[in-house]
Formats: sequence, structure tokens, C-alpha cells
Amino acid sequence: MKTVAVRKVARAEARFVDVLAQCGVATVHEAQGRTGLLQPYVRPIFPGSRIAGSAVTALAHPGDNWMMHVVAEMIQPGDIVVVGLSAPNTDGMFGDLLATSFKARGARGLVIDAGVRDVRDLQAMGFPVWSKAISAKGTVKETLGAVNVPVVVAGQLVRPGDAIVADDDGVVVVPRGDVAEVADAARKREANEAAKRERLAAGELGLDIYKMRERLAQEGLVYVDSLDEID
Amino acid sequence: MKTVAVRKVARAEARFVDVLAQCGVATVHEAQGRTGLLQPYVRPIFPGSRIAGSAVTALAHPGDNWMMHVVAEMIQPGDIVVVGLSAPNTDGMFGDLLATSFKARGARGLVIDAGVRDVRDLQAMGFPVWSKAISAKGTVKETLGAVNVPVVVAGQLVRPGDAIVADDDGVVVVPRGDVAEVADAARKREANEAAKRERLAAGELGLDIYKMRERLAQEGLVYVDSLDEID
Amino acid sequence: MKTVAVRKVARAEARFVDVLAQCGVATVHEAQGRTGLLQPYVRPIFPGSRIAGSAVTALAHPGDNWMMHVVAEMIQPGDIVVVGLSAPNTDGMFGDLLATSFKARGARGLVIDAGVRDVRDLQAMGFPVWSKAISAKGTVKETLGAVNVPVVVAGQLVRPGDAIVADDDGVVVVPRGDVAEVADAARKREANEAAKRERLAAGELGLDIYKMRERLAQEGLVYVDSLDEID
Amino acid sequence: MKTVAVRKVARAEARFVDVLAQCGVATVHEAQGRTGLLQPYVRPIFPGSRIAGSAVTALAHPGDNWMMHVVAEMIQPGDIVVVGLSAPNTDGMFGDLLATSFKARGARGLVIDAGVRDVRDLQAMGFPVWSKAISAKGTVKETLGAVNVPVVVAGQLVRPGDAIVADDDGVVVVPRGDVAEVADAARKREANEAAKRERLAAGELGLDIYKMRERLAQEGLVYVDSLDEID
Amino acid sequence: MKTVAVRKVARAEARFVDVLAQCGVATVHEAQGRTGLLQPYVRPIFPGSRIAGSAVTALAHPGDNWMMHVVAEMIQPGDIVVVGLSAPNTDGMFGDLLATSFKARGARGLVIDAGVRDVRDLQAMGFPVWSKAISAKGTVKETLGAVNVPVVVAGQLVRPGDAIVADDDGVVVVPRGDVAEVADAARKREANEAAKRERLAAGELGLDIYKMRERLAQEGLVYVDSLDEID
Amino acid sequence: MKTVAVRKVARAEARFVDVLAQCGVATVHEAQGRTGLLQPYVRPIFPGSRIAGSAVTALAHPGDNWMMHVVAEMIQPGDIVVVGLSAPNTDGMFGDLLATSFKARGARGLVIDAGVRDVRDLQAMGFPVWSKAISAKGTVKETLGAVNVPVVVAGQLVRPGDAIVADDDGVVVVPRGDVAEVADAARKREANEAAKRERLAAGELGLDIYKMRERLAQEGLVYVDSLDEID
Repeated sequence: MKTVAVRKVARAEARFVDVLAQCGVATVHEAQGRTGLLQPYVRPIFPGSRIAGSAVTALAHPGDNWMMHVVAEMIQPGDIVVVGLSAPNTDGMFGDLLATSFKARGARGLVIDAGVRDVRDLQAMGFPVWSKAISAKGTVKETLGAVNVPVVVAGQLVRPGDAIVADDDGVVVVPRGDVAEVADAARKREANEAAKRERLAAGELGLDIYKMRERLAQEGLVYVDSLDEID
Repeated sequence: MKTVAVRKVARAEARFVDVLAQCGVATVHEAQGRTGLLQPYVRPIFPGSRIAGSAVTALAHPGDNWMMHVVAEMIQPGDIVVVGLSAPNTDGMFGDLLATSFKARGARGLVIDAGVRDVRDLQAMGFPVWSKAISAKGTVKETLGAVNVPVVVAGQLVRPGDAIVADDDGVVVVPRGDVAEVADAARKREANEAAKRERLAAGELGLDIYKMRERLAQEGLVYVDSLDEID
Repeated sequence: MKTVAVRKVARAEARFVDVLAQCGVATVHEAQGRTGLLQPYVRPIFPGSRIAGSAVTALAHPGDNWMMHVVAEMIQPGDIVVVGLSAPNTDGMFGDLLATSFKARGARGLVIDAGVRDVRDLQAMGFPVWSKAISAKGTVKETLGAVNVPVVVAGQLVRPGDAIVADDDGVVVVPRGDVAEVADAARKREANEAAKRERLAAGELGLDIYKMRERLAQEGLVYVDSLDEID
Repeated sequence: MKTVAVRKVARAEARFVDVLAQCGVATVHEAQGRTGLLQPYVRPIFPGSRIAGSAVTALAHPGDNWMMHVVAEMIQPGDIVVVGLSAPNTDGMFGDLLATSFKARGARGLVIDAGVRDVRDLQAMGFPVWSKAISAKGTVKETLGAVNVPVVVAGQLVRPGDAIVADDDGVVVVPRGDVAEVADAARKREANEAAKRERLAAGELGLDIYKMRERLAQEGLVYVDSLDEID
Repeated sequence: MKTVAVRKVARAEARFVDVLAQCGVATVHEAQGRTGLLQPYVRPIFPGSRIAGSAVTALAHPGDNWMMHVVAEMIQPGDIVVVGLSAPNTDGMFGDLLATSFKARGARGLVIDAGVRDVRDLQAMGFPVWSKAISAKGTVKETLGAVNVPVVVAGQLVRPGDAIVADDDGVVVVPRGDVAEVADAARKREANEAAKRERLAAGELGLDIYKMRERLAQEGLVYVDSLDEID
Repeated sequence: MKTVAVRKVARAEARFVDVLAQCGVATVHEAQGRTGLLQPYVRPIFPGSRIAGSAVTALAHPGDNWMMHVVAEMIQPGDIVVVGLSAPNTDGMFGDLLATSFKARGARGLVIDAGVRDVRDLQAMGFPVWSKAISAKGTVKETLGAVNVPVVVAGQLVRPGDAIVADDDGVVVVPRGDVAEVADAARKREANEAAKRERLAAGELGLDIYKMRERLAQEGLVYVDSLDEID
């Protein structure tokens, strides 16, 4: 019942996904109400990438990367492969051969709640990966999982077709139905931040820009010249 | 009582702070008797920086970066902002907007016992950060902490005005009253090491340079050609 | 009885060690039947190195690097120093002075189940290190350990003279008696992978190249267009 | 949009939930195909409890337990409260007052991806809790989350009304629609195990009971009297 | 300069310390404004103890318990020994012999940011310990630390003479000058909680007792019968 | 080559093993020069056991407990089963059925560098286990490992026939050839400690019993009445 591979996935609309990529993880995460962020133990294996795409998913078992080959067939250009595990694992479930295959099919990157290897090759071929670990530990192909089912990855639910945004700050998932709204909110947020950045760069304080002084006083913050005044 | 912001901070003397920056964390840590080192989980978010400065401090609560705006007003050129947390937390309490503000006020960097975000932007603007985590997780501004009070950061007590040294090896704190003495000891240590480095580079052994052979024998170290001799 | 330093170590044959270095950790690990890999918490302190060599070993106690000086005398050109600890520890047991000495003696690198420091200097001098942590915490020279005895490092037994391979994927140990066989298997594996890489790059699927479809069906994998078909 | 509290929850059928409680976590986990297990860092705060019930859920933010009061109103007798967090957190979000309230409303226990406190009181009142940590760290009531929405807890998706089973082995979630089928499979599994337990207790080997010897030989396992035979 | 043992310590007043012991860690932590809590990785080595006392302190190095013997002489009846480490360590720095000594001198317990051993003996003799780890790893007596200086333990600064409260919820430190005030606040808090506990046990909701409904609505919490209403 | 099961194991002599059990882990660890201790993350699944026995070993892969059935046949009365893993894993590789089998064959307990389950049953049947985790996660039987080969478990090398001692303080391994000598040293150490315990219980200080005062002074420890004297 669970050992299923789903062929048809409705993807997130590309024009909104592109906006998400421009805005980056931190802004998108804020724009959708501080939700959807994968836990911070998932890190890029090399710095400097920023991608967004639609999720195709796999659920795998510790030490077994069989489903990675099944999901390869499902990849369409612009997809990001997202792999959840049935139990904590750091084995190297992905390397340069699978990356060659994924890239040839059009994948933009991989997010995996386990380990990967051949990191020097992956960087050389420009295939970005966000993983829990780097490990050369090889895997078997013995136990069925599932492909294109909802998976939990680093504490977040990812459904096939959801938008994924990944950069040096981490990985965030945006439900497919929310991408237009979130892209719009993210863009507005960016515009708003640009104005504030300029004022802050000029030495103005957030205390004044965000009008925090009154509320700080109400909550009871006391300014003193020295701790001796209050002890 | 605790929700206080202290305005006046006696800083460490700049000429000694500059010496500490030249010597780096490992040497300074040795020079003050192997004390003052923050736990090694605090790491630079990008490699290659080495700074020293006087601490201005904030005590914050998990998921709440309100006090970061209060401390911004206290920054003087040459300061390093040091942020302790009231409980373990990895949320991204600092990003490019606050960095723009801190930099405009003259801060040299940030040391924080929590997470930060916008790491690509921070690197681009050359604002170095040592943190416990990288996380895009946004924070609220709801609960008061304190500013310029003594804080515990990664296992070390930091008082406002103490000298902070930070590089790729980690972060060390030098009590303000000790900076002259520690800077002097660090410089001597460096000179001493330079001489030894030369001898070691020529192939001479530490066993001979440090005259360890006798004490090793006294303690009972036995040299054999093979383990078979002793089994 | 344990506080012994063994002088004579039979090294792995250089021509096979060189092949292992060319193949890298992931391939060598596969080539010897997925064994010998150190746990993935041992990481390079800077990226981009790939080395292989014969192990000379030290067993040290937490916070005590005395044995590092004893092992220095045992180093021959082409060796890799491998240091095990008697209990978990992250102190900085190795820095630029010892690195200068090790390098002058001909060591190719260091693998240590503890911390190291002076990482910027180590990178500048091109001396690669794989460690559990980066920490400036200084150490003492008070308690005897052993040199050139079998040690456990990050979950693997390393005997003096075993071959060590280390790169960005981690560290693998090859028993000295197996290096010829493993080098041969690794080279064959590389040739085999080159052919597959080309087919995968052309868009062919691992499902077809490895003839997985039949076995997937036998094991019960079901392809559907949508999850609605099966719920 | 996300700050919602859902009032109506279809519960798992009680007679099947009772069977799940009798079978326990390990058996239920096997009976539904080795899925649904929460990560093992979620542990009971005191040993010896075994419960099952329908999930009512809350999504909370680090250091903020406001939603725990909202979910209290939703509890019906036989429920288990399940709390997910928007970011990693160990604060003590639950103590004896909330436990008194939950118990009065009929809750059988709590599963939370954060910390709890007053553990001695909780044990005295017989209210079992599975948590990530024990911490006295107090929380605020400032930021809205959600109640009775799907939440991810320790790596698993839990929907309101799903069955939860928890004992000293951990916590497993059974989708509401699967409880009849899983309860049946679990009961059969138990019966099957009873027969095997008797044979194993009599000294018979699993090798023979499960007829493993032939397949072991096929896979290449070689029996020797000593390692000397093969080296 | 740092290798000092301070003989005279002003203790917290016993009558207030006794009140703190009655109230327990969670209540005391709340009563002093949610400050002073040691990080939750410090745990009791056996359950069921609740103690309070004045701190006598030691600063020790990894793998070296020499200072534990120096602090023994400083113990007065009613004290709790508090040990900080200069770097992360889990070695077993304390066992049944030292416990016999500490108990004979009148110590009520030990809080240590490292490991301990002989836990079965410690439980048998009724000497409670809160530690980071349990480990039989022996230690040396080679490097000086300090006694009765301020130490950082599990993220909190503890000064000699501060009050320590420890129970199954963890450990909290109360500055010596605050014990009267905190004891008073803790007692009031307990009285207040007793009244609320009764109402909650009768099935009344925190939502009503704490009058949360209006503020929840203001902040935007929406009640619905089903998620379908809002999607 | 590695997929081998060795039938004949020379056991440690029973009369010495019995002495080790009486002395316990901490004493045995000291008696053999502070070596042989497994890392402290291996913990008993229930408190109060103390056992010693000869090791029979298995090397298993993550998520695969096939070799546990092979090792069952090798068990002789008085043995302790010791299981190493080829990569980090927390799956529940052992439960009440295997425990029934192991116990029927005469095993005294299990030490495993992975997870176990059915902990309530294991406690009820009095079969002690030291493990890395408790997890209900089921395993497969697909990949060959090895039986009665040397294995690394929690950082220590264990050879078949070595003596294992395990109690609430952890687990220590004693090489088979050393058991007589270590048992003797442990017994002497116990006798010696009994005398010291009496003196310490009478209030005498370790400073005097171990004559530490002179060496403390030599090393530079300064006694003062207050920190004010030295600042």
C-alpha cells in the first residue's frame, strides 16, 4: 500500500517559483508567516547556491537509496528532488553518478534528510545539495519506499509539487497553492526592506525606524548609566 | 529589575586590543593561562576573518531579537556585539538589516549564542559573525531582556567592555583589566614561537627542543621495535 | 604496559597507496566492501584536499597532546598521522607548530578524533587535517599514551602501516595487507563508473542501466498516476 | 490564515485504539509496515506507561505555550494532546497546572516536540508525557500558532484524529483511516509472536524457525572455525 | 593569578534557602523572572531528589579532578558543590570516595558540568548529583584550576555563596543577594497556583481563568469547525 | 571475505570474569590503566544491573539485524553479546524475541552500538542491555555482516572472548589475555579504597590522605581569604 510511485505531479507555477528564488529563503520564510522552514541541521554541501523549484519526493529507508533511481524517472526540468527518511540516518545516499542522472533530467538540486558523497564532484558539476551529513558510506538497494508521496524532511511536510527554496540560509517549503500569494508578499517585503536598509546604512536606528521606544518603556525597560544605579 | 539597558561602558584600551587581533585566538587563549575560550560550537559563518574589539552585550530570549535593536544604539566604533540567550536556541536572530545598522554604528562583528541568517549578504558586506547556527527562522520582538549587563555566551562570562578576539579558531574573551598584561604575554609568546617554528621547520624535534625525553622516560614510556617485544 | 612507543612500522606499498589517492574515499570504501569508513563527524578543516598514506598512530588522553611529540619522531615521508583518544574530547591538540614539525618530517596530513587550532595557518601551509572539532583550547603534556599501537579513531580500528585515504567525503582505512587488492578493485570500479556516467549524462535511467524494473515489480512497487487510485 | 483553531475532529474508533494500546508501539509500528514512528529523541519522562488515544494537535512557537491553553478546550475523554514546534526548542512548555487541566478534560497524555517541567508532580498524578527534553525554562504567551491542524512532531506528520500509541519504546502515529486494519494486523502479529517466543525460549534458533540458513549461504556467509582459515 | 583557592564565602541565609527547596526549581525560576536556569543537559543521576544550598565552587580542566579535593576542605554543612569546566568534557570526575568525603563535610549534593561515576553507590548513600554525563572514565590530578571563584556551569554564572536549587526539573541559581526576595515571590506564586490548580482540576479552562479569549481574538485567532472553511 | 561467522572462540576464564563483575566498571577501568572504556553514550536501558562475561560479537549494518540470529547460535552460557555497526544507527535491532532466544542460550546481556526495543519486556525478563538508543524502528534481514570477528563498539575494539563488564557506569572491555592481571589489580584497588573510604567518612580530607598539599603549593595554588586580596 505504501510502496507506490506516483507519476503525475501538479507543479508550482514557474513564474512564481522564479520570484521565490530571487527573494531567498529568509524572505520567503517571513513572507509566509514564519512557517515552512526545514530544521537548520540541513545545510548546503558547498556555499553560494540559491535555487527554487517544484518538489518531486522520495521516502527512503536508512542505508538504502533504491528509491532515488525510481524518482529519477519522475524528474522534469526545474524540479528539486526532496528525500525523506523513515529513521535517522547519515549514510551517503547520493553521489556523482546519481547527480549526473538527475542533472540530465533537468533537476535543479537535491534536499535530503541523510548524507551524500562525492561532494567535490558535485561542486565541480554545479549540482547543489542540502543534506544532513557528508558521508562516503555506501548504501544498498533492497527495501521499497515510495515516490511522489508527502514526506517529512527535517521537520517539515513536503508534498509533491510544493515549491522549495534553498540557499545558504537553509531550505523552506511553500505549499503549491500558496506560491502566488507568497511570491507577492516576498516581493513586497523586499521592496520594504530596501528602503529600511538605506536608512540603517545612514546610521538611523531601528529603535526609531520601527518606533520601538515607547513600547520598550511600557514593557518596563529602564535605561541607566551604570548597574550601580539599580543594585 | 533585570530589564535594564546600561548606557556607559568602559572599553578595553584600543592599542592592546589591536595587539590581541594580531596574535589571534589560540595565542591569546594560551597567553592568559588557557582561560576565556568560548565553547567550540560557536563558529564563524564564513572563513577568513580575524577581529578584536570591546564587547557591548545583550541578553535575549529564544526566538526574540528585540534587544538587538536596543544594543545597536550603544555601539561605538571598534565594538563587537556579544549576545547571550536565556535558553538554548538556534533561531535566526540577526540578518542583513541589523548588520547594516551595526556596521553603520561602527561594530566590527557579532558573537551570538543562537542562529543568524542572510549569511551570503553578511559575507558580501564583510560583516563577520560567530554563531551557534545558521537558520532563517524569524523572531519576534515581545519580551524584554537586557543590554550591557554581564552575559554568559557559550560557556564564558562576558562583561561589557571586555576584549573579544575572534577568528577561524573560535572566540576568546579577555577581562578588560587584563588586556595590557595579556597583550604583552601574547606578543612574547609569538616571538618565542617564531624561533621554535624555524627549528621545527628544519626538522628538529619537539622532543629535543622542549627537552621531553627525560621526563617521558621517568614517567615510564618504553621504546620498542615491535609490540611483540612486550606481549 | 600500554605506555609504549613502537619504532618499526611496516608501511603500505607506495604504488598502491597512490592509486587509492587517485580514486578517493567513496570509491575505495565501495571497493573494499563498504567497510573501513570513519564516522562522518570527522571532517576536513578546509576543503579541497585528497591524500593517501601509511598510518603512524598515537593514543592520547583528553586535553593532553604529549604523544603528538613522540609520534613526530616516527614520521617518514608519505605518512599520515592518526590520533585516537581515550575518551571524547574536542580540545585543540594540534596547531601550526606541530604542523611545521610534521610537515618537515614528511607527513602528508593528520586525522584526529579531537580538535585542532590555527586552522588559517594550516591552510596557508597546505597541511590538511581531518578532525572532530576546531578549538583553540590548549592542552597539557602530563599523561602518557602510546605511539604506533592499534587505535580506534571515529569508530574504526587503525593499525600502524594501514593505508589511510582522506578527502572531502571523509576518511577510510584500508588494512595494509589489502591495499593491492583494494587498489585494483577501486581502479576497476572507476573504469566501470566512467561508462555509466556517460550513459546517465545522456539521459538514460539507472532503472534501465542497472535493470531494476523487474525486481522493483517483484518486490511490489506499484506505479499509479495519483494517490487517489489507491486510497 | 494559519492562526486557526479547528473545533471538530473526527476521532479514531475507540475499540481499535484499545487494541493498539494492548499491542504497544513496536508491534503497531511493524504491523503498519514500519512507518509512523516518531524519532527516538522523544522519550517518556517516567517509565512504565502505555497509552493510546486520538490526537488533538497544537502548533506552537519556541518559548511560547499559548496554544496549549487553546487546545485544552478541544480535549475529549480518550484524547492525547500532540504538540509540534515551528523551530527546535527545549523550553518547559507544560507543567503540573496544564496537566491538571488536561487530565480534568479527559486527556490520556501528552506528546510534545519540546521540553516539559514539574516531572515529579506529573508522575505523582499519573499523567504520562513523551517529550524532547525536561526543562524548567518558563514560556510566554505572545504568539499565535494553531490548534487541530496537521503538525509535524519528531519527524512524523500527525493529523487531528489520528491514533497515537506511546510506551517506553517511543511513540507511533496511525492514520485514522488505517486503525481497523492496523489493529487487526497487530493482533495477528502478537499471536504469531507468542508461538515463536515459546520455541525460542526452549532454545530453538531463529536460524531454524525462520529458515534462514539457506539464504545466508546463498548470500555468501561462510562458517569457519577460526579467522586463520581465511586470512 | 587564576590558580587560587578562596577560603571565606558568605553563604545565602539558610531560612530562605529552605523555602527555595520547598518550592522547587520550576517555581523558583519563574519567581525570579525566568532567569538563572542551567541548561537542561545537566540532569540528576537518579530521580526523586530536591535540594537547595549555598554554592561552593570549583573550576576544573577536562579529565582532571584535582580541584575537587581542594574544594572538599571548603565545604560547610548545607553547601552544594558546583563545578565548572574550562572546556567541554564528559569524564567521570566524581565517584563514591569523593562523595563520602563531601557528605562527611556536610555537602547536600553536587552540580557538575562533566561526568560522574559510581552512580549506584551514590544513590545507595543518598548523595544527589546533577551532571552532564555518566562515565567511568578516570581522571588525573595534574593541572591547577581554582576554588570558590565565579564559575560558568551549563550556561549560568554561579558565584560562591549563591543559592542553588536542584530537583528532577533541573538546576537554578539564585544570586545570594536575591534569596529573600525570590523566596518570598516563590511562596506567593505557590499559593496562587494552588487556587488555580483547584479550578483547573474542576474542569475550568485556563482560557477563562487567565481571561485569554479577548486577546486571542485581537491577535487574530479564528475558530472554525473545519479547515475546509478557510482553504 | 568479511562475511564470515567464526565458530570457535576462546573465552576469558570464568573465575576472573566473576571478580571483574564484583568490582564493577569504574574500578576495572582504573585497574587496567584507564583504558578499555566504551564511550558514555552507551547506556543501560534500565538501572541496577551489573554483569561480566565473555564477548561473542557481531558486525551489523544500519537497519539490518540479520547477524543477530547468526550470533545466537554461537552463544555459550556466561557470554555477553556485543554488536558493532558499520555506520551510525539508532534503529531498534533487538527486542523481546531475540532476548528470549539469547537468554535461552545462556547469554548474560547485550551491548549494542545501535537501538533496542521492547524495553519493558526486557526489564521484566531481567535481560540487561546497554545501547545507544531506544527505538521501536524495525529492521530488515538483507545484508551480511560478520560474527565473532573483532568489532569496534562505541570507540573500543572488542575481540571475541574478551571480557566485558557492564553496570550503571557504562561498559568496559578487558582483553582476554589480561583478565587475570586486571582482576587482581581491581581486587587490590577495592581493598585499598575501603580503607580510604573509612577515613574520608570520618571527615579526613583527601588533601591529607593523598598528601596533596605540598604539590599544590609547588604548582602555584594560592590560598586567600577573598578575591580582593589578589585583584
